[in-house]
Order: sequence, then structure tokens, then C-alpha cells
Amino acid sequence: SMDGAPTPASPAGLSAYVAVSQLLGLTLLATTGAWLGRYRGGVAWHSPLQFNVHPLCMVLGMVFLQGDALLVYRVFRHEAKRSTKVLHALLHGLALVIALVGIIAVFESHRTKGIPDMYSLHSWCGMAAFMLYLLQWLLGCGFFLLPGASFSLRGWYKPQHVFFGIALFVLSIAACLLGITEMLLFNIRDSYSHFVPEGVLANTLGVMLVAFGLVVGYVLTRDDWKRPPLAEELALSMDFKTLTEDESPGGGS
Amino acid sequence: SMDGAPTPASPAGLSAYVAVSQLLGLTLLATTGAWLGRYRGGVAWHSPLQFNVHPLCMVLGMVFLQGDALLVYRVFRHEAKRSTKVLHALLHGLALVIALVGIIAVFESHRTKGIPDMYSLHSWCGMAAFMLYLLQWLLGCGFFLLPGASFSLRGWYKPQHVFFGIALFVLSIAACLLGITEMLLFNIRDSYSHFVPEGVLANTLGVMLVAFGLVVGYVLTRDDWKRPPLAEELALSMDFKTLTEDESPGGGS
Repeated sequence: SMDGAPTPASPAGLSAYVAVSQLLGLTLLATTGAWLGRYRGGVAWHSPLQFNVHPLCMVLGMVFLQGDALLVYRVFRHEAKRSTKVLHALLHGLALVIALVGIIAVFESHRTKGIPDMYSLHSWCGMAAFMLYLLQWLLGCGFFLLPGASFSLRGWYKPQHVFFGIALFVLSIAACLLGITEMLLFNIRDSYSHFVPEGVLANTLGVMLVAFGLVVGYVLTRDDWKRPPLAEELALSMDFKTLTEDESPGGGS
Repeated sequence: SMDGAPTPASPAGLSAYVAVSQLLGLTLLATTGAWLGRYRGGVAWHSPLQFNVHPLCMVLGMVFLQGDALLVYRVFRHEAKRSTKVLHALLHGLALVIALVGIIAVFESHRTKGIPDMYSLHSWCGMAAFMLYLLQWLLGCGFFLLPGASFSLRGWYKPQHVFFGIALFVLSIAACLLGITEMLLFNIRDSYSHFVPEGVLANTLGVMLVAFGLVVGYVLTRDDWKRPPLAEELALSMDFKTLTEDESPGGGS
């Protein structure tokens, strides 16, 4: 019943969950900063602290910004679809650039210290998440922003895009948890088991990463919180269906 | 169009994905066994090898059996709902028992070796996954197997049960990845970065755990692969709705 309501309200629960997700997201960043600042000497580029750019960029790009990019269709649910799409693509693009900076930081830091690259499960999962995230972004732009793809092709790709979008977000969080574990076992291997503050803080960061993923995942998968199509989109989609009726409309597999 | 078809076929793609998931699941178990047998001295209870019971039980219970329990509504899609429910609960129950054995193994092994418990991010995530999984199982039995819960209460709880079911499966896999990383950094810290076979094998196990989660998650979330209600269930649900019409039917949050 959108007719007559000039500014339709969002579902009440949705706003609360989105607010919690943003509080969690900011707390994630603050906790990462506190860990690096208080226990790891801080963050700097051309210095032995270059490694510390890596966790900060990955939490900011691959978790916080990626998560917020996933939420834009729920938050801006009554804006024009085109604007929301562009914001979705821009946030993911920004996340990718920041993640790239974080990846360069760890490769340069490894080179300086003579540490081999890409041997750990963390690096395998993290690099897979980044490469597939880049691929997903390129496919998303190609299918949904460029004019080439047909209505039925977009309809076929959309559920794949949504599933792999959430899957890559989850894999990114898992890669962060692996990174936390690696950092702790490399830096405080012997004191970790004595519940030293750095270990407890970093574990808490891990738990908050899981909580952020849970809240964002819940908002994204709740059926009645999905973005409703605007009246003009419904009309447009009817027009498209009429225009493309000669194409196979089933899309059953 | 179920009318007239005595044994309706499953969607073609579904069977292929389920087959791949089972191949992956068995390969997971074989790879875990190979890692423990070839590089970690094998598995035994009252011995210094007791720790090795832990990874084997967790991969079997918290990943393979938990995943298969999630799949039963997709695989046995034309059986009576009650039988499928009971199988779902039994598989989860078996998974819980096997996971409990795995948890006892690591606590006993820690006690023998004088290692503190529950200090690592792996233990926090893994224990949270197990306790919430047990809670989810108890709630599932209470809401869906015992006769007490009303039709509308079941309808309210079901989407929560489905979301947290998938979330706990994902968290269980993440906990396994953390466990792999811990084991490698404790056992082969210095040679891990030289791509020794044990490290590559355990990393590959981690990648296969992610792949198992992806395939199971894809099967579970694909809309057109959901279990269709049987004709008699539709009729029954109509009856229930008529009987409970005085209860609030919205269930909107």
C-alpha cells in the first residue's frame, strides 16, 4: 500500500538492526586501531610498522565498507533504484581500493623482512576473497550498470550475485579471524594462553567481527525487509516483459 | 503441477550439487584423516594422541553431519514432513554427540599436558558455535517436534531457526579454519612458510571446508530448490489457519 504515502516509513525493526550494525562497525574499527596503537606500535607506511596498515585496511575495506555496501538496498529502500545501484557499486569500489592498499602493505612488509608470501591458510582465504570480490564487482557493473545486458540475463544473474555477495562477505570475515589468530600466535605465542590483555582484546575483535556479520546477514536475508519495487519500476518491468516476451521467460535453471 | 505425477522428480541441478557436496564432505574426512595419520601420528584416546580426536570429531560432527542435516529437506523433498523432521533432528543430535566427544578430547589433552583452556579465538568461536548449536537443537525440538507450540508460534520461529541454522554452520566452518591455523602454527611454525607438504595439505583442507560450506549454502538458499509442501500439508495448513483464525495472523515482527 504505497499509494498516497509521500515518504513511506522503513520497517521499525530494520532501523534498529541497521543502527546496531553501524555501532558494531565503528567499534570494530576503533578496536582494530586500539590493538595496533596500544600493543603493536601504531601504523605507518615507510617503516617497520607498515605491516599494521594491513589489518586496518582489511577490516575497513573488506568488512565495514563491504557490509555497508550490501546494506544500501535495505537502507535507501525508497530512493530510485539507479541511484542506489550506483552507491552500492561506489562503496564496493572504495572497499576494493582500500583492501588493495592493505594487500600492498603486507607484500611490501614481507619483502622488507624477507618473509615468503601466500603460504598460510589466511593468505589463501584472504586472497581468494579479494580476487573473487573484484570479479564479482566487475560482473556486477557489467550486468547491472552497463546497458548491454538484457532483462532476462539480469534476472538470471541477480540471485547468483546476491548469493556470492553474501558468501564473499562471510569469507572476508573468516579471513580476518584467521589473520587475528596468526598475528597473535606470531607476536604473543607464549603469553596468549595466560589471557594477557592483548589476546583478550584481539579475541573480542574477532567476536565483534562475527557479530557484525550476523547482524548484516540477518538484515540482508529477512524476507520482509527486502527493498520493495517502486510503482514506476513495476510499470517499467511490465514494459520490459512485454518488449522481451519472445525471449524465454522461464529462467528455471 | 504435482497432480497426476506419482513420484515427482527432483530439480536436475539440485541432485548434481548434492552429489558434489557429498563428495566434498567425504574428501574432507579423508583429508583430515590423512593429515592426522601421515603427519600427526594418528588418533587414539588414552594417549598423547588424544588431541587428534578433536579435529577429526569436529570436522565429522560440526561440518559434515551438520551440513547433511541441513540438506535433508532438499534431498527428501517428497517424503512426509514428519519423517524428514525426525531425520533432521537425529542427524543434528548425532553431530552434537560427536562434537561433544571432540571437545572432551581437547580438554582432557590440555589437562594432561598442563595447557590452559579457552584462551584462543578458535576456542571462543568454536565453543560459541557448539553451545548455540545445542541451544538451537533444543529450541528446534521444542518448537517443531513437541506438540506444544501453536501454528502461529512455529510460523514466527521458523525463519529464525533457518537463519541461525545456516549462521551456526558457517561459524562452525570458520572455527575449523581457525583450528587448522592454530595447529599449523603450533606444530610447523618455522617450516610452514616454506610450503612444506603438511602445510599445503592442511591449507587445502581449509579450502575444501570453505567449498563444502559454499555448495551446501547454495543448495539451501536457492529459492526454486526449497521443499515444496505436499498436497496434504497444504490442506492441513488451511485447516490450522481456519482453526486458529482468532490468533493474530500477521506475525510481522
